[in-house]
Amino acid sequence: MAKSFSVSLQEPIFRTTYRVIYGDTDAAGVVYNANYLRYFEIGRTEMMREWAVPYSSMEKMGCVLPITESYIRFKAPARYDDLLTIATSLVQVKRVSCRFHYAIFRTEEDGREQLLVKGFTSLACINTEGRLTPFPDEVMEKISALVPKKEE
Amino acid sequence: MAKSFSVSLQEPIFRTTYRVIYGDTDAAGVVYNANYLRYFEIGRTEMMREWAVPYSSMEKMGCVLPITESYIRFKAPARYDDLLTIATSLVQVKRVSCRFHYAIFRTEEDGREQLLVKGFTSLACINTEGRLTPFPDEVMEKISALVPKKEE
Amino acid sequence: MAKSFSVSLQEPIFRTTYRVIYGDTDAAGVVYNANYLRYFEIGRTEMMREWAVPYSSMEKMGCVLPITESYIRFKAPARYDDLLTIATSLVQVKRVSCRFHYAIFRTEEDGREQLLVKGFTSLACINTEGRLTPFPDEVMEKISALVPKKEE
Amino acid sequence: MAKSFSVSLQEPIFRTTYRVIYGDTDAAGVVYNANYLRYFEIGRTEMMREWAVPYSSMEKMGCVLPITESYIRFKAPARYDDLLTIATSLVQVKRVSCRFHYAIFRTEEDGREQLLVKGFTSLACINTEGRLTPFPDEVMEKISALVPKKEE
Repeated sequence: MAKSFSVSLQEPIFRTTYRVIYGDTDAAGVVYNANYLRYFEIGRTEMMREWAVPYSSMEKMGCVLPITESYIRFKAPARYDDLLTIATSLVQVKRVSCRFHYAIFRTEEDGREQLLVKGFTSLACINTEGRLTPFPDEVMEKISALVPKKEE
Repeated sequence: MAKSFSVSLQEPIFRTTYRVIYGDTDAAGVVYNANYLRYFEIGRTEMMREWAVPYSSMEKMGCVLPITESYIRFKAPARYDDLLTIATSLVQVKRVSCRFHYAIFRTEEDGREQLLVKGFTSLACINTEGRLTPFPDEVMEKISALVPKKEE
Repeated sequence: MAKSFSVSLQEPIFRTTYRVIYGDTDAAGVVYNANYLRYFEIGRTEMMREWAVPYSSMEKMGCVLPITESYIRFKAPARYDDLLTIATSLVQVKRVSCRFHYAIFRTEEDGREQLLVKGFTSLACINTEGRLTPFPDEVMEKISALVPKKEE
Repeated sequence: MAKSFSVSLQEPIFRTTYRVIYGDTDAAGVVYNANYLRYFEIGRTEMMREWAVPYSSMEKMGCVLPITESYIRFKAPARYDDLLTIATSLVQVKRVSCRFHYAIFRTEEDGREQLLVKGFTSLACINTEGRLTPFPDEVMEKISALVPKKEE
């Protein structure tokens, strides 16, 4: 039986917040498991917008980044109206793919952060015909700078 | 203040079923309100597939049917694992638009049907440039036949 | 055939923003119709939090506010990465129910706001047994103050 | 960097079908990544209903099964109106947890099945106080019988 992944964030870590709505929760009173992949999208998108190239600009360059692999480890449930912190870091950049790590925390009223979820997504760079294609130079330059030690 | 719509089904009524999953519910223990619009889509799509022209064929004819108006009246909540019946009828067909009425029932264990939700959606026929366009003849012929007395 | 509702905002209007993610869109390249009800929830929730009583506090007072009726009029599509403004106003407060009006705009790069969607939701106040119950006094006092001329 | 999981189905394999709606897709023209976790829920729920104990019965026995870990490997995209086959197998049962493997196929018009997605979810059995609790005897007996060789 496969063991669990170890997922750890690496500096630089991008932080953004999200408020849980009823539409995110389920009848068990907690956030429905699939919705954490939405939160991962928010973290990744805002990190790219602020620190590299907005996804919408990449689309104009003719490439999109579908997810090829995703993993989530659930530690504790998020609940209705929680103010979540989505922490994102880019941990790997290759010629046609990259990997983001995520951790989601609840900001408690006393300011402490409780870890709720950790996970990763791997993404591939594909062109409009759906074929693997290298990241555009402008993108590669910016995202490489976000990975502590570039792995090839 | 505007009054509520009256929404009634008209023969012929198409029926299909859907099983509620956790992902459809919210922390109040019931189906989240937005998801009934997903159920309306299921009813409308399966009715069109069985009795007229599949949506995917219409796309190949170069037209799509975005929703221009939607209305839902919530009578009683659907819950996790409910087996729902989605009843759909096409009540109006015009040159570039149409309207579906829906009612969603829970099939109780004794076979009775409890009404949970009623509603409608209006749809417009647009081409690939996003402009209003008449329904293709083949589509118009088939959907007109589904409306008791065609309203113009 | 029922006519469309007229939906207009009334002062005071609460404004909040939301960034469209891929998970909100559909294969037609636009925001999926059901998701506007999620945006309405965001508008209503944040308005109540800022100007009246947070939903989570109402839950602690033993009441929840299920939607009894919803209506959406779609004018123009929202798209991936749009920064939306959700404008919300409380237009009616009764003893056990209330109604919110919403308008969703896209903030264009030149600062103009394009209207995309208008709609309303009616909500009922129910207790933990699921029965209609008057708004708690504290809530009634605050929400009544948000309606220009209280309608009974 | 962690390597990918190997995920393989084991007999007995439960199969159920699901039709992709617009609400499942995104602006890239494919099913949005998070929705595969909804499909996994459908596979797991229907397998349990048919071959073991319905989830709703387990709730009545006082236990729920939150997901503690999920993994998805995306091979090829599902698209609007695809008729998907969700293949599910229970590969591990322990005292307070279990693991399901999934594979999602598109049934092509010529009858061939194309693999789109593989993945797993691990679940824990918890009681109404949220504490880990052994599966009820009746449940354990039935689910153990579904695992080729019980792993402890």
